[in-house]
Amino acid sequence: MNTRTSSPTQAPGILAGSANPHLAQAIARHLGVPLVSRVIERFPDGELHVEVQENVRGCDLYLVQPTSPPAEAHLLELLFLADACRRAGAASLTAVLPYFGYARQDRRARGGEALGARLIAGLLEASGFQRVVAMDLHTAALEGFFSIELEHLSAVPVLADAVQPDLPEDAVVVAPDLGAAKLADRYAQSLDRPVALVHKTRISGEVVRAGTITGDVRGRTPLLVDDMISTGGTIEAAVNVLLAAGCQPEITVVASHGLFVGPAAERLSDLPVRRLVVTDSISLPAGFTLPVQVHSVAPIVAEAIKRIHYHQSLRDLVARAA
Amino acid sequence: MNTRTSSPTQAPGILAGSANPHLAQAIARHLGVPLVSRVIERFPDGELHVEVQENVRGCDLYLVQPTSPPAEAHLLELLFLADACRRAGAASLTAVLPYFGYARQDRRARGGEALGARLIAGLLEASGFQRVVAMDLHTAALEGFFSIELEHLSAVPVLADAVQPDLPEDAVVVAPDLGAAKLADRYAQSLDRPVALVHKTRISGEVVRAGTITGDVRGRTPLLVDDMISTGGTIEAAVNVLLAAGCQPEITVVASHGLFVGPAAERLSDLPVRRLVVTDSISLPAGFTLPVQVHSVAPIVAEAIKRIHYHQSLRDLVARAA
Amino acid sequence: MNTRTSSPTQAPGILAGSANPHLAQAIARHLGVPLVSRVIERFPDGELHVEVQENVRGCDLYLVQPTSPPAEAHLLELLFLADACRRAGAASLTAVLPYFGYARQDRRARGGEALGARLIAGLLEASGFQRVVAMDLHTAALEGFFSIELEHLSAVPVLADAVQPDLPEDAVVVAPDLGAAKLADRYAQSLDRPVALVHKTRISGEVVRAGTITGDVRGRTPLLVDDMISTGGTIEAAVNVLLAAGCQPEITVVASHGLFVGPAAERLSDLPVRRLVVTDSISLPAGFTLPVQVHSVAPIVAEAIKRIHYHQSLRDLVARAA
Amino acid sequence: MNTRTSSPTQAPGILAGSANPHLAQAIARHLGVPLVSRVIERFPDGELHVEVQENVRGCDLYLVQPTSPPAEAHLLELLFLADACRRAGAASLTAVLPYFGYARQDRRARGGEALGARLIAGLLEASGFQRVVAMDLHTAALEGFFSIELEHLSAVPVLADAVQPDLPEDAVVVAPDLGAAKLADRYAQSLDRPVALVHKTRISGEVVRAGTITGDVRGRTPLLVDDMISTGGTIEAAVNVLLAAGCQPEITVVASHGLFVGPAAERLSDLPVRRLVVTDSISLPAGFTLPVQVHSVAPIVAEAIKRIHYHQSLRDLVARAA
Amino acid sequence: MNTRTSSPTQAPGILAGSANPHLAQAIARHLGVPLVSRVIERFPDGELHVEVQENVRGCDLYLVQPTSPPAEAHLLELLFLADACRRAGAASLTAVLPYFGYARQDRRARGGEALGARLIAGLLEASGFQRVVAMDLHTAALEGFFSIELEHLSAVPVLADAVQPDLPEDAVVVAPDLGAAKLADRYAQSLDRPVALVHKTRISGEVVRAGTITGDVRGRTPLLVDDMISTGGTIEAAVNVLLAAGCQPEITVVASHGLFVGPAAERLSDLPVRRLVVTDSISLPAGFTLPVQVHSVAPIVAEAIKRIHYHQSLRDLVARAA
Amino acid sequence: MNTRTSSPTQAPGILAGSANPHLAQAIARHLGVPLVSRVIERFPDGELHVEVQENVRGCDLYLVQPTSPPAEAHLLELLFLADACRRAGAASLTAVLPYFGYARQDRRARGGEALGARLIAGLLEASGFQRVVAMDLHTAALEGFFSIELEHLSAVPVLADAVQPDLPEDAVVVAPDLGAAKLADRYAQSLDRPVALVHKTRISGEVVRAGTITGDVRGRTPLLVDDMISTGGTIEAAVNVLLAAGCQPEITVVASHGLFVGPAAERLSDLPVRRLVVTDSISLPAGFTLPVQVHSVAPIVAEAIKRIHYHQSLRDLVARAA
Repeated sequence: MNTRTSSPTQAPGILAGSANPHLAQAIARHLGVPLVSRVIERFPDGELHVEVQENVRGCDLYLVQPTSPPAEAHLLELLFLADACRRAGAASLTAVLPYFGYARQDRRARGGEALGARLIAGLLEASGFQRVVAMDLHTAALEGFFSIELEHLSAVPVLADAVQPDLPEDAVVVAPDLGAAKLADRYAQSLDRPVALVHKTRISGEVVRAGTITGDVRGRTPLLVDDMISTGGTIEAAVNVLLAAGCQPEITVVASHGLFVGPAAERLSDLPVRRLVVTDSISLPAGFTLPVQVHSVAPIVAEAIKRIHYHQSLRDLVARAA
Repeated sequence: MNTRTSSPTQAPGILAGSANPHLAQAIARHLGVPLVSRVIERFPDGELHVEVQENVRGCDLYLVQPTSPPAEAHLLELLFLADACRRAGAASLTAVLPYFGYARQDRRARGGEALGARLIAGLLEASGFQRVVAMDLHTAALEGFFSIELEHLSAVPVLADAVQPDLPEDAVVVAPDLGAAKLADRYAQSLDRPVALVHKTRISGEVVRAGTITGDVRGRTPLLVDDMISTGGTIEAAVNVLLAAGCQPEITVVASHGLFVGPAAERLSDLPVRRLVVTDSISLPAGFTLPVQVHSVAPIVAEAIKRIHYHQSLRDLVARAA
Repeated sequence: MNTRTSSPTQAPGILAGSANPHLAQAIARHLGVPLVSRVIERFPDGELHVEVQENVRGCDLYLVQPTSPPAEAHLLELLFLADACRRAGAASLTAVLPYFGYARQDRRARGGEALGARLIAGLLEASGFQRVVAMDLHTAALEGFFSIELEHLSAVPVLADAVQPDLPEDAVVVAPDLGAAKLADRYAQSLDRPVALVHKTRISGEVVRAGTITGDVRGRTPLLVDDMISTGGTIEAAVNVLLAAGCQPEITVVASHGLFVGPAAERLSDLPVRRLVVTDSISLPAGFTLPVQVHSVAPIVAEAIKRIHYHQSLRDLVARAA
Repeated sequence: MNTRTSSPTQAPGILAGSANPHLAQAIARHLGVPLVSRVIERFPDGELHVEVQENVRGCDLYLVQPTSPPAEAHLLELLFLADACRRAGAASLTAVLPYFGYARQDRRARGGEALGARLIAGLLEASGFQRVVAMDLHTAALEGFFSIELEHLSAVPVLADAVQPDLPEDAVVVAPDLGAAKLADRYAQSLDRPVALVHKTRISGEVVRAGTITGDVRGRTPLLVDDMISTGGTIEAAVNVLLAAGCQPEITVVASHGLFVGPAAERLSDLPVRRLVVTDSISLPAGFTLPVQVHSVAPIVAEAIKRIHYHQSLRDLVARAA
Repeated sequence: MNTRTSSPTQAPGILAGSANPHLAQAIARHLGVPLVSRVIERFPDGELHVEVQENVRGCDLYLVQPTSPPAEAHLLELLFLADACRRAGAASLTAVLPYFGYARQDRRARGGEALGARLIAGLLEASGFQRVVAMDLHTAALEGFFSIELEHLSAVPVLADAVQPDLPEDAVVVAPDLGAAKLADRYAQSLDRPVALVHKTRISGEVVRAGTITGDVRGRTPLLVDDMISTGGTIEAAVNVLLAAGCQPEITVVASHGLFVGPAAERLSDLPVRRLVVTDSISLPAGFTLPVQVHSVAPIVAEAIKRIHYHQSLRDLVARAA
Repeated sequence: MNTRTSSPTQAPGILAGSANPHLAQAIARHLGVPLVSRVIERFPDGELHVEVQENVRGCDLYLVQPTSPPAEAHLLELLFLADACRRAGAASLTAVLPYFGYARQDRRARGGEALGARLIAGLLEASGFQRVVAMDLHTAALEGFFSIELEHLSAVPVLADAVQPDLPEDAVVVAPDLGAAKLADRYAQSLDRPVALVHKTRISGEVVRAGTITGDVRGRTPLLVDDMISTGGTIEAAVNVLLAAGCQPEITVVASHGLFVGPAAERLSDLPVRRLVVTDSISLPAGFTLPVQVHSVAPIVAEAIKRIHYHQSLRDLVARAA
């Protein structure tokens, strides 16, 4: 027990952007507080206008806003809310980003590009945030893009618990590409199943074999895991390789972030995907019709906020995610 | 003649955002240089991707991008381009903002709002710009929102020259509200015409008379001037007051920035507006059908860039605008 | 009622600069606290020496100092006090500027000037202030010159209450120039009187009529309002226009800030000014002999400090001022 | 051809830290310039003293210093040299870090650690560097740890050219772990050979099979590639897996950075390593006796400096490295 | 009694670097708190790894680390610990530097050197410290090298108390050079003894007489005082001058910081030094055999931390040191 | 010869504040350039207004302004000029401070004071200066108060040359207190004369003997040297000690900075001061009647500016000063 820290006596303030108000509401409910009252509206020329309608002076505020598409609008809204809170005398501002857009722009490949993820990080810092809470970042090293504290949560425990009950004995956790290998390991460990890895093998310097599999999938039921599903292209390619390798044609697909943009719904509906599981880090696109099981990250995010706010350690919370 | 400064031997680099490529092209043409080659595109999830495709190392770059609606997208694009240029080794970055969005959010009225214009200024500075070139800002004091140099140009000379030739002898320059009073003065001085001012008079503490006019308009032809036309509401109200005051029903409307959002086209077409004159600081909205005379600010912006680049004084250029 | 914020248990610390110690003392009295003990003195070579003589470690301090003439000396003294407090471990510093000098240098007219107001804002931020409390700023947009919070109070309620009792039925609120138009509106609304506006009309491009009046003043008693009285020149010109327009020769002049520099006393004593009303935001110049009613802003400033300090909303306090 | 940029007329200044003066000398030789004269010495109490002994006012300086062990001493020396140059009026400072120590501390695993790589990046920025040139960073996303420009070179072309001549037809490029997979791909593409990947497969949630191989290695000659060799532990493990899989017992090991710390020499000498190839990014440890082929990165670093200095594009230089 | 400040309810957290863990332990004991649990270790390549092993979120932490030789390693360790604490959510960080290395690099003599002390100050600030506690700095003006608060303690009271009891009546406090003159005055005042001053007199422009003495030392017992003993060279020279001047050959040497590097032990053992007194600001070098009396500064440092932490004044604590 | 740096082709721009326009003019004359045209004036309320009246875009500007009394006004004027130049597009700004006011506030003695010198340094940096040129600073360590380059010139060579011709053979250089000891050494070395030192000796802990002298002054002619003469108090005290010690009653007093405030003229005229020699770093007070020889530092300052501007080394210039 730490006797050096005293818990603040006031509750955390939860402020919802417009990107995912349901998640913010659920987080607030878990914390037993109402959402901070605010207006987010647009002038006739489309310019954003925000107003925090209650007194936040001296408050520690947690602004919940995934920077999902349209990322610019959601990002600017977050920055405007931060400015409003800061000028209204908030004691501290934490950006709660259940999904961190632009995470894939983490390096310049040819030298003429913007370093998008760092640019976003810079804008968040310049706007007065003292802390960022993120979840299943595409690149863990994004933590170093910030000079402020970043707490990196994970939905893996939530999603693993969700698929565990009716997971067949013969299931194998599959990473659809190299980038998902560590994630697959975490699922495998949590679910006590073996792991397999789809990747492209270079036959010679010029010839690339479209996809091969490390690990045993023949006759087994794949649990395909990734951090996000965008257009579904990576999933589609991996499923085709798995089927060619003789897996059971009953695939479960699990991802932390369900963007489902462009042809995603069509692509996924054409595949033998028995079950599609994501979290509510991002609101499902309007008119999205694919059957998908959505598990809430509100409990884990709320727990993280609670610990941060009351000066408790996040170690085991983050450790499960590491 | 200043013997202390040497002109750089290289030409200025003009980089166009996607908000108004025609204006950027025209500016570049005036300067006798090609636009810097660049890609601005979107990934399937809507995330922006920019790439400067030629070598800008050591260049002084001028990024032309009005932050017209959708302001967030145009702003972020500008920041991404700046980041790309900065990391690619550009020697200096100047943001050329023929229209500066969010300029009206220059104070907090009730204390819970964001200070939008300052926020935008802060983002521009945080992204590495060394200088801003703006035009006919809604609030001149925006200059003080920046710690970096801001050069404030004006389209008044261009627009005054445009309406001069067939301006009736009986014309009177009219400001549609108090905020446009100084602008009207500048037109009146340039065109050698009297000025009138529409404003709301408070009859008593509670009763406001919708609009009265200072100055003589009866039987005269109004030249209604403003910095921008957004929904056309201010113009509509002023025209009604002018007509009620017995002006000639042949009104010319002149504004630096033609946003024409929402009901603007419909409103203006219902009024006895003989002539509608704006600049090309903003691209006309797609499908905009109202007859409008568009005069280019490319010459004045190009001249400003030339002077900045070759270390010449902007005094008379800005003085005409003051 | 906000349950998220806890009030600090310690009282606010009020530290007085030498520009207006009486106001600071009055503010402290309203808050029920003694002034923080300090020395402000000059070495034989005129260099300033300050010393905070009691323990301010962990304190939230409010430094009261209008930057009235001599503005440099008062400003530097404020910065020295801030430095002393900051290095002595103060928890936070708020600059309370009942009058903000250099506010009129809010833009560069010709390009070779300093942007004085922004420069001052920058020095205040660089010296460790977390917040500014100002009153009736010459330009409201000065808020955006600061990246830190600025709370903009107004003496209008105090002054309107002061003149209300014996205000004739026929009184009309008059703005002496365009810049005071919004201020006049606020008085008019508060006092339930009509408003009039003195301004220069441009007869043609070259000819300016020295002053005309919008609104009805003939036979009425003017209540001339402005944010500040400096040399009295603006007042003098307006009074002459009003008299020429046939107003009652019994004028009341009201201003938030009474600088009364140079010929002000002489000018005003030559005019039919029945009553001259200002606040104590600035100490009256030594030897100032004109009869003037001074109403204290100590209650409103003290109330603002109390709310800031105890994490209450300033909304209605500022709203009255908006 | 870019006509916007003018080449500087002065040559780049190369300043060598003490970590690898031979490399700095070789770079300078390639550029046809002498090293900047400097003293790096220690006072009796071990405190560092540096002095730049010639005039560097107005110079663009490139400080060559791998932050190899002892990393703190080498880093501080670099910061001291930067300070000396900056205060002596250098026009710009580029940190040339052929090896970037602490690159592996790119995230916090449990929450109580320092984010070492970001800390180092912050110190470099705080000391006045405008640019970093690095080579084969352990994590490419380190670019985003800097707000300044980072140019990421690669020794892969140099090393691939070095092993090409006598590479057997049956050679297979092998990545010793997942982290080296992309690097292996680049070698494979350059050398026109297939690729294989050693990694740990998780048999079930709890059981990890020590190492399996994706790709065909039986009877083939492995070319084992990695970004760095530290203690040799990763290489040793991979070689054992390769041998167990039936590869030819004639292994070539290639790495950009040869740290060879602790038991490295002993470990590697016990393995059937036919050939060990590294670059001179780091000086070999004193008394290192293992036969090792060292290829210089001086040409590629010098070329990068030349292009940066004379405002040429690094695109193809970096593209080969991407 | 100050009623404006409330004491924090939690105890201060003391975190020990590896430079002087015994002192840190003693400070913690004086404060009645355990040391914060942490790991400081080195990877096989010598890179530093730190981990704070308990929850410090919301804590005010005091990091105890003299930057004694090897200064770079001790400094970097301090920066790493600060980074770990900051990212783990510590409320504030105070660097407690009982000895401040590089203090003598406080100006550039010839223009090509680094300004070492300022560089170190900059690194400490860049790493997130809010405050520095130092002791008997070589140059008091180092306070101005920091923009953050620096509290300058002194060991003079501790050391004066230590030598007081058996100080002969005829003792004279001697400064071995001009730089120690003020320090000698403080000892003299505390011990009620006269003072003498050894310095080099310039006989003419070119000829320097090695050392002369101001004040009366003949037949008296010297108490030679300095801020630090490094190689012992300054002491040796002063002792020789004192002996030549006929002092009693029973010299006591007192210094705040006992570095004892290089030939120090040998030099001092060859002199008629009866008693050698230092503090525990720096751990004695391993294998140091000279008889030396070490008095702990733990009480004074602990007292300073207590006062800082509980918002009490350091005035009399520092005043004794001034 | 350094071939890495190219000299700029434009001349340096010299801008004079109002504190010492004659010195600025002399510097400009030495450099063969006219002063930059500017207006410095005051509004009726005493607020400062500056305007740079010619084009300085792209110029390297050197602003000459000793911060002599009234220091606040001179300092603010310098900051205003810097702001005007920066916003007008100057390429770089150097503050040339022949006298640096507030230099004596270089530490806090009791903890409640401001750290004046550092505060001033911070304001200069915040206002956009890239470099400071100072002369005979009261504390050399002030260099570390700046993160920007500070070049520390000295008037000692100028003043030594001035007194050399008719310096008696028996002259002795005397420092009036410990703080001037190093300065006296520099004069002594330059003039090939012995040195003496006046200081207060502590007879016992409580009793201070007003002043004693180290070195031989009996029958010799003192050359009393100090960095500045303020009220003349230090000089008066030293002269009295010297006379009591039997020196020749023909004293020469030399100081870099002649402030001559308060009773200085009267005090000095009462002493047997044969000759009083200062520089023109500060304008003599209006109405100053004491005979004083003023030697100009314009040549040395101009030389420093020339070397800085044309990228030459200041080493020997500064070395003479060290």
